[in-house]
Amino acid sequence: MDDNYYMKQALIEARKASERGEVPVGAVVVCKDRIIARAHNLTETLTDVTAHAEMQAITAAASTLGGKYLNECTLYVTVEPCVMCAGAIAWAQMGRLVFGAGDEKRGYQRYASQALHPKTAVSQGVLGEECAVLMKDFFAAKRR
Amino acid sequence: MDDNYYMKQALIEARKASERGEVPVGAVVVCKDRIIARAHNLTETLTDVTAHAEMQAITAAASTLGGKYLNECTLYVTVEPCVMCAGAIAWAQMGRLVFGAGDEKRGYQRYASQALHPKTAVSQGVLGEECAVLMKDFFAAKRR
Repeated sequence: MDDNYYMKQALIEARKASERGEVPVGAVVVCKDRIIARAHNLTETLTDVTAHAEMQAITAAASTLGGKYLNECTLYVTVEPCVMCAGAIAWAQMGRLVFGAGDEKRGYQRYASQALHPKTAVSQGVLGEECAVLMKDFFAAKRR
Repeated sequence: MDDNYYMKQALIEARKASERGEVPVGAVVVCKDRIIARAHNLTETLTDVTAHAEMQAITAAASTLGGKYLNECTLYVTVEPCVMCAGAIAWAQMGRLVFGAGDEKRGYQRYASQALHPKTAVSQGVLGEECAVLMKDFFAAKRR
């Protein structure tokens, strides 16, 4: 199992969001080669701005492990986390963050580049094109 | 009802957190002179780094109003929000943020000063000393 495999799992989650009319972002948390949490954006469904895929995945992963800190985990998410999610990733002391598409408008790197925990390793661009196309198609359909 | 009154309500929440052994941060959301949400930090109790007072208050307020956006609301919180909470406050398009004590180490102003929605008005230092003392006493007791 490699980064591409786990990002594909996050993409499956993102497509579930899209099917519900939610901005298509999906996430999985992996610990010791096992997926311990899967989530997709549910902000519209739950009427809750905090219900981003990453937030739910972090909450679920901590619940599975029985501990708040995810330093032995990797979070795969289809789109660059926003400032809120970057803050949550920092509090969780996530071991590694892997994201697909960048988000120039809302991504944490623009507003809070130092927001992550210094020990969190970051990889970006994994299946980035596929993740970006999903977003573009969603917003294009919205404008029609 | 003025800022001091509502901050006192947030302080009541903060003390509830302290009594549970949680970092003492409390919050209330006020809409049209009515408190529509009350919350305190529950990160230890829920084993969830995302369970900050502000996050829960935002989720609860949106649920009460039946809408994601809180542009007619004021969030009162005893301590300066962290980056995660500032991001959530931005997504909620909070009308106004009032906080008590500053947080030089973890507050959003250090890491992400542009994180809030540009239309969110910010006031700080309301009952600031009282809010800060609660935090200092909590951490002093932890070190004993």
